[in-house]
Amino acid sequence: MRTVKLDLGPDSYDIVIGRGLLAQVERMTALLPQKRAAIVTNTTVAALYLAPLQKALEAAGVQIIPIVLPDGEQYKTWETLNLIFDGLLTARAERKTTLIALGGGVVGDMTGFAAAVYQRGVPFIQIPTTLLAQVDSSVGGKTAINHPLGKNMIGSFYQPQLVLADLASLDTLPDREYSAGLAEVIKYGLIDDLPFLEWLEANIERLMGRDTDALAYAVERSCQNKARIVGEDEKEHGVRALLNLGHTFGHAIETGLGYGAWLHGEAVAAGMVLAARASYELGQITDADLARIIKLLDAAGLPTMAPALGYERYAALMAQDKKVDAGQIKFIIMRKLGESYMGTLSPEVIAAALQAGCSDDAAASRVA
Amino acid sequence: MRTVKLDLGPDSYDIVIGRGLLAQVERMTALLPQKRAAIVTNTTVAALYLAPLQKALEAAGVQIIPIVLPDGEQYKTWETLNLIFDGLLTARAERKTTLIALGGGVVGDMTGFAAAVYQRGVPFIQIPTTLLAQVDSSVGGKTAINHPLGKNMIGSFYQPQLVLADLASLDTLPDREYSAGLAEVIKYGLIDDLPFLEWLEANIERLMGRDTDALAYAVERSCQNKARIVGEDEKEHGVRALLNLGHTFGHAIETGLGYGAWLHGEAVAAGMVLAARASYELGQITDADLARIIKLLDAAGLPTMAPALGYERYAALMAQDKKVDAGQIKFIIMRKLGESYMGTLSPEVIAAALQAGCSDDAAASRVA
Repeated sequence: MRTVKLDLGPDSYDIVIGRGLLAQVERMTALLPQKRAAIVTNTTVAALYLAPLQKALEAAGVQIIPIVLPDGEQYKTWETLNLIFDGLLTARAERKTTLIALGGGVVGDMTGFAAAVYQRGVPFIQIPTTLLAQVDSSVGGKTAINHPLGKNMIGSFYQPQLVLADLASLDTLPDREYSAGLAEVIKYGLIDDLPFLEWLEANIERLMGRDTDALAYAVERSCQNKARIVGEDEKEHGVRALLNLGHTFGHAIETGLGYGAWLHGEAVAAGMVLAARASYELGQITDADLARIIKLLDAAGLPTMAPALGYERYAALMAQDKKVDAGQIKFIIMRKLGESYMGTLSPEVIAAALQAGCSDDAAASRVA
Repeated sequence: MRTVKLDLGPDSYDIVIGRGLLAQVERMTALLPQKRAAIVTNTTVAALYLAPLQKALEAAGVQIIPIVLPDGEQYKTWETLNLIFDGLLTARAERKTTLIALGGGVVGDMTGFAAAVYQRGVPFIQIPTTLLAQVDSSVGGKTAINHPLGKNMIGSFYQPQLVLADLASLDTLPDREYSAGLAEVIKYGLIDDLPFLEWLEANIERLMGRDTDALAYAVERSCQNKARIVGEDEKEHGVRALLNLGHTFGHAIETGLGYGAWLHGEAVAAGMVLAARASYELGQITDADLARIIKLLDAAGLPTMAPALGYERYAALMAQDKKVDAGQIKFIIMRKLGESYMGTLSPEVIAAALQAGCSDDAAASRVA
C-alpha cells in the first residue's frame, strides 16, 4: 500500500493506492461526519463493485443511498447531474451526507461537481475504478460537466477528503480504457519527468501485461507528479496548466468527433503527438524525440494520428477552450523531451502539425 | 457615499452604497482583468438600466456581452442558468471575462452561481437594484438556483469582487418589492441589533416614504450587520445561520404556495412572525414583544399571517431545508427581543405557532 499526500493546507488529503482497498472501509468511515453516504456510480461499475462496497459500509453502520447513472461520456451532462440531485433530495440527503464517487472519470467529475454544489457543498470521497481516473481525474479537485458548446465548461475546483485507488478494480477494465489511462501516465513523463518517461519506455510491456508492481509504481509516480503540480497551483493560475499537455488538441478531437466516439485518453494521446509535432516544427525537439513519443504511445495501444477535421474546424474548436486568454489560445509545448511549458503557436505551426499528424483513417480506427 | 468592507482575507471586497453609482463605472473598470464583461439582467431591469450601464462601460472601452433573462423567481432554474452559459459560450467569454449581475436577488443568485461554475469560476460584480438584494442577497457570496424539490438547493459560496448598491435604482421599485426588502432589514434588528430595531420602529414612516437619508442609513446598517456575521463565518458553519431567521418557515411558505406567489421577503416576514410565536410559546419573548414585531412588519407593508398549509405540509416542507442535521430541523429562535440563536423546536411548539400564526385568507392576500 502506498500513500501520496496532496498538500493544500486545510483541504489536504491522502491518495491511497493498493489492491483490495474497497473492502477496507474504515479509511472512509473515519471521515464521515454522519453515518450516511450516497454512493454514485454507473451501470457498468455498479454491476461489479456497488454491492460489495455498499455491504461493507452498511456492515460498519453506514446508511447508503445508491445512485446509479448511465455509463458514458455522452451522459456527462446537466440532465444526468440532475439524477444525482433527484436521488439526494428524494432521500433527504443533508449537508453532512458524504458523496462517494465509485467509477471512472465521468462519474468522478460529475459526483465531485454534485458535491460542490449540492446545498452549496457536501463532503466527498473519490474511489476511481479506471486507470485514467486513478492517475488523473480523481486527483486535484477539478470537477465538471460538459456543455453542448464545450467540454468541462461548467464545474468547480472542489477537493475530495480522500482518494482510494484500488488497483484490483483495474482487473476488469477493458483494454481500450486501460490504454486510455496510460496516455495520462505518459503525459507526466512528457511534462517534466524524463526519468519516469524513460522508465515507461523500459516497462511498457510489463504495464501492458498489467503487472501489479509496475502498475502500483506507475500510479504512485503519476499521483506524486500531479500532487506536486496541484499543490503548487490549486486553481490553475500557472504551472497547473501544464497538466493540459495534449488537451487543447485533444478536446477539439473529442468535441469534433462527438463526445464518446474516442475516449478522453485516446484524444489526449493524439493531441500530445500534435503538440510534439508543433514542438518539432519549432525546432525544440528532434525527429528522434518525436519518434520515441510516438513509439511509446503506440506500444501503449493508443492512437498517434489525429482525425482529419481540417484546420478551420480545429481552430474553431480550440478557440472555445478554457485556456484562451484575450483571444490567444494557450498550448502546452515541449521545450525538449521531458520538459514542457505554456505558450502560443502561430497558425502556420498549428497547420503544419495538423498536416503531418492527421489522417483520414484515424477517426474510424477507434470505433469499437 | 458609504462603504462597508466585507473582510474575508483574500476574498475581501467593498460594498459601496449611494445614489448614482451606476454611472460611475471607474469603480468597476479598475477591477476588470480584461476589457470585457457580460451584464446579466432581466427583462424588467434591462428596460430601465441596461442601456445606460452598457453605454457607460463601452465608453470606458469595455466590450459588453448583454444577457437578458426572463423576470421572476419561477425562472431561478437550471434552464434559465443555461441561458447565461449559452450567452457566454456563444460570445466566447473567457476565464477573465467578468460577470456583472444587474438586478434583484434572483438575477444576483443566478449570475453569482454562473460565475462560480462557468469554466470553474470567473470574476463577478454585483449591482443589486432591489432593496432586498442591496441589504441581503448580493452581500456574502451565497449563490444558488432552485430545484423542483427545494429552494436554493444547488449553489455555491462565491464572493463578488465588488457590490454597488445604487439607491437611485430603488426609485423604480414597486411598493410590494420595496416592502419585501424591508423584511430583511427588520431581520437584522431581530437577530442581534436591538438599537437598530428601535431605530426602525421610530423611522418606519420615513423609510416607507423612501427618504434618501433614512434609506442610506438602513442599507448601510444592514450591510454592516451582514458583513460582520459573514466575516465571522463565511460558509455557514455557525453564526451565519442566524441570517436564516424566518427562513425555515419562509421557504416552506414559498415552496408550499409555489415559487413566485409570494415574494421571498413576504414569506420571510410571515416566517419571522412564526419564529416569534414559537419563541413566545417557549416563554422567551412577551406578548408585548410579539405585538411590536407584528406592528413593525405591518407598518412596513408586510404579511404577518402565514398561509394555512396545515401542520403536516409545513413539517414535510421544512424537513427538506438545508439546515437539517441528522433529521433535526434547525430553527432560528428569539432568546429575547433583538437576540436570536439556533436551536430545535418540538412538534408541539411548531403546531402552536402555526395554529396562532396561519390564516385561510393569508395566501390570497398577496396575489397581485
